[in-house]
Amino acid sequence: MRCEVLAIGTELLLGQIVDTNSSWIGEQLAAAGIDSHYQTKVGDNPGRIVRCLRTALARSDAVICCGGLGPTKDDITREAIAEVLGVPLELDDEVAARIAEMFSSRGRQMSTNNFRQAEVPKGASVISQVRGTAPGLICRLGDRAIYAVPGVPHEMREMITRAVIPDLVSRAGVAATIFSRTLRTWGLAESALDEVLAGRMAALDEVVASGGNAPTIAFLASGIEGIKVRITAKAADQASAAALVEAEEREIRSLLGPAVFGVDEVNMEAAVGALLAERSLTLGVAESLTGGLVGSRLTSVAGASGWFRGSLVVYASEVKRTLLGVAEGPVVSELAALEMAAGAARVLGADIGLSLTGVAGPDEQDGQPVGTVWVGLAGEALGGPSALLLRLGRYAGGAREQVRLIANISALDLLRRRLLEHDRRDG
Amino acid sequence: MRCEVLAIGTELLLGQIVDTNSSWIGEQLAAAGIDSHYQTKVGDNPGRIVRCLRTALARSDAVICCGGLGPTKDDITREAIAEVLGVPLELDDEVAARIAEMFSSRGRQMSTNNFRQAEVPKGASVISQVRGTAPGLICRLGDRAIYAVPGVPHEMREMITRAVIPDLVSRAGVAATIFSRTLRTWGLAESALDEVLAGRMAALDEVVASGGNAPTIAFLASGIEGIKVRITAKAADQASAAALVEAEEREIRSLLGPAVFGVDEVNMEAAVGALLAERSLTLGVAESLTGGLVGSRLTSVAGASGWFRGSLVVYASEVKRTLLGVAEGPVVSELAALEMAAGAARVLGADIGLSLTGVAGPDEQDGQPVGTVWVGLAGEALGGPSALLLRLGRYAGGAREQVRLIANISALDLLRRRLLEHDRRDG
Repeated sequence: MRCEVLAIGTELLLGQIVDTNSSWIGEQLAAAGIDSHYQTKVGDNPGRIVRCLRTALARSDAVICCGGLGPTKDDITREAIAEVLGVPLELDDEVAARIAEMFSSRGRQMSTNNFRQAEVPKGASVISQVRGTAPGLICRLGDRAIYAVPGVPHEMREMITRAVIPDLVSRAGVAATIFSRTLRTWGLAESALDEVLAGRMAALDEVVASGGNAPTIAFLASGIEGIKVRITAKAADQASAAALVEAEEREIRSLLGPAVFGVDEVNMEAAVGALLAERSLTLGVAESLTGGLVGSRLTSVAGASGWFRGSLVVYASEVKRTLLGVAEGPVVSELAALEMAAGAARVLGADIGLSLTGVAGPDEQDGQPVGTVWVGLAGEALGGPSALLLRLGRYAGGAREQVRLIANISALDLLRRRLLEHDRRDG
Repeated sequence: MRCEVLAIGTELLLGQIVDTNSSWIGEQLAAAGIDSHYQTKVGDNPGRIVRCLRTALARSDAVICCGGLGPTKDDITREAIAEVLGVPLELDDEVAARIAEMFSSRGRQMSTNNFRQAEVPKGASVISQVRGTAPGLICRLGDRAIYAVPGVPHEMREMITRAVIPDLVSRAGVAATIFSRTLRTWGLAESALDEVLAGRMAALDEVVASGGNAPTIAFLASGIEGIKVRITAKAADQASAAALVEAEEREIRSLLGPAVFGVDEVNMEAAVGALLAERSLTLGVAESLTGGLVGSRLTSVAGASGWFRGSLVVYASEVKRTLLGVAEGPVVSELAALEMAAGAARVLGADIGLSLTGVAGPDEQDGQPVGTVWVGLAGEALGGPSALLLRLGRYAGGAREQVRLIANISALDLLRRRLLEHDRRDG
């Protein structure tokens, strides 16, 4: 089963908006075992959209159109699909009623244009809209399929997950449902993960070779999001597939231990926040090279105010001394990191202090090469102070932003591991 | 002249990397007056790359290939182009010598694979590499052209600007060179900009209608990067085109006044940093809803350590009081913003204090709706304290991140305008 992605919108070609939708859909297709050989961007031009759809259907089994379902005259995805299918557009009464109801419940005036969103190519199935007003579409053309979803990312994601991937998987001819879960890891290189899991993967292959059903395991290196380990299972029903995945998750967790920090959409910040919230602990940060990045990302987590006290961005060395009590001497050092962590906890009134001090580049500092970062931790809740030296010079070739991002995640990972270790010592 | 973009790399299709290169190239093409109707992503598969190249050349005048020029066996862009051109690959001695020299000057061991990067399709011109080891390519096929640039963003950008756009513009058959400059604005809506500049744009149209040469003006709404006003001129030589653009820039600046904050790649943070550096002033920040974003973005500016002292991320209300001396009472208020700004300057030992306190959402706070943000400023260098109320509720429909980003830029814009106003009062 091959499925292409067609992102529609002149603003994508002009670079006013980066097409992140296709990347996300590509990731979902790969996870579901569906090949995606081509992804195309095209503008709001009827002839060119039609040509792209025909090209896609000539070389793939399905195409997902993303965008162009809005109410304005630029939104012509519906018309283009109808032309390719050779059918007229018809008003779907149910969709029209739902749109009218949404406007009236919000006390908003509805323009007649909005009814354009209720037009569907004759014979197409509607993917009902949970949010927004534009429904998605599932259209058949012989043994091929055209899907259409809105370009608004959260509406698109919801419809792809709920309707498009399941339809593709069922059309793939396997009388089975698919279930997958992603374990997110930090601290092991891809080659190391591969080594640790090689035996397990061989065992699963053997089960399949001998005619049994077993999940598959795939790695996805995702930069500062860590390396994702995706477990996917097919079974006759959802519950059986989920059971296979859950059993496999236990196996993999026992092999990877604390390298697994989260599941699916849980990033490192959210994982750390959850651990702090469970323990009723608060966190204060002191950061220099990251310039506020640690605080900024932590406060992106919903409910951060429950455990995050603040962050002291001490960029000038003198401020490290006056505000945090860091002693004279080099500020990129184990001692400075420990003093900064203790100072952050004290000044911010937090249970735990976390600090980062280092050299983001472009130039070295105090004889320390770019990428040298000390992370400090303080707090009785962790059983006392500790520090870790990161050497991120290998990332320094690119932007200094990369050093900052990796330092941020590595520091949070250290805090996460210390929290877990302390549980074990207590337990 | 039509030019497509072909981004090459399986990791792009799998969503492991978002293809930002095509968007950037699309923006450059648009600025140069070259149409880009299609942009395609394809994996590291020889047959499919060749098919994409043939499709592109059948419907466009040129195609830019991005990626697949590295030294590994997955990097097959060179081979695919040679196949489409119907020519063999040949070792370019000059490129090979440069690669060998680069390795030896860095004291690194060179693998024979690296010489693959010196292979070029027979008859192609080489775009010499300033950074990195992979040269770019300019290839002719009748009246069509294939360009190849590396996928590493900074290498790609440098080659597109230096070699590809000028070649495309000259091939466009206009015996002229093009020069463009982007004025970056904040604080005026696109409709307001349009109104202010309508007279000027009509005047330029008249010049052209009567057979004269005049620059064109285009708007590009770029989210938190502001609205860009691009001035483009064509003339017989670069100096004449630049002179036209510069004269027009003066006209537009006189109409837009302080709404123009920067030129080309200068973002708001860099603009504020430059103003501070010129005046030998230092900045300290106190931020709550932005969680460290303001500090993080300011420290992305090269040389920030010259004028940035630090940022106090006071997320917990209590820390606002203990650390910054904010009095009891609502923390999203004019008074709290002013106290925070004064506190930031005092605690961080900065000439100027900037503060942000507000409601990022999802829930309202102290009866204030989501999107309510107070910005405070303190410092004799600004002639004393001032504050501004932002109502960003219209952005709250999306992510809370959008409220934080807009608040950040708006706060820096306020500081920028106050610095400029104070100059005028002094002058």
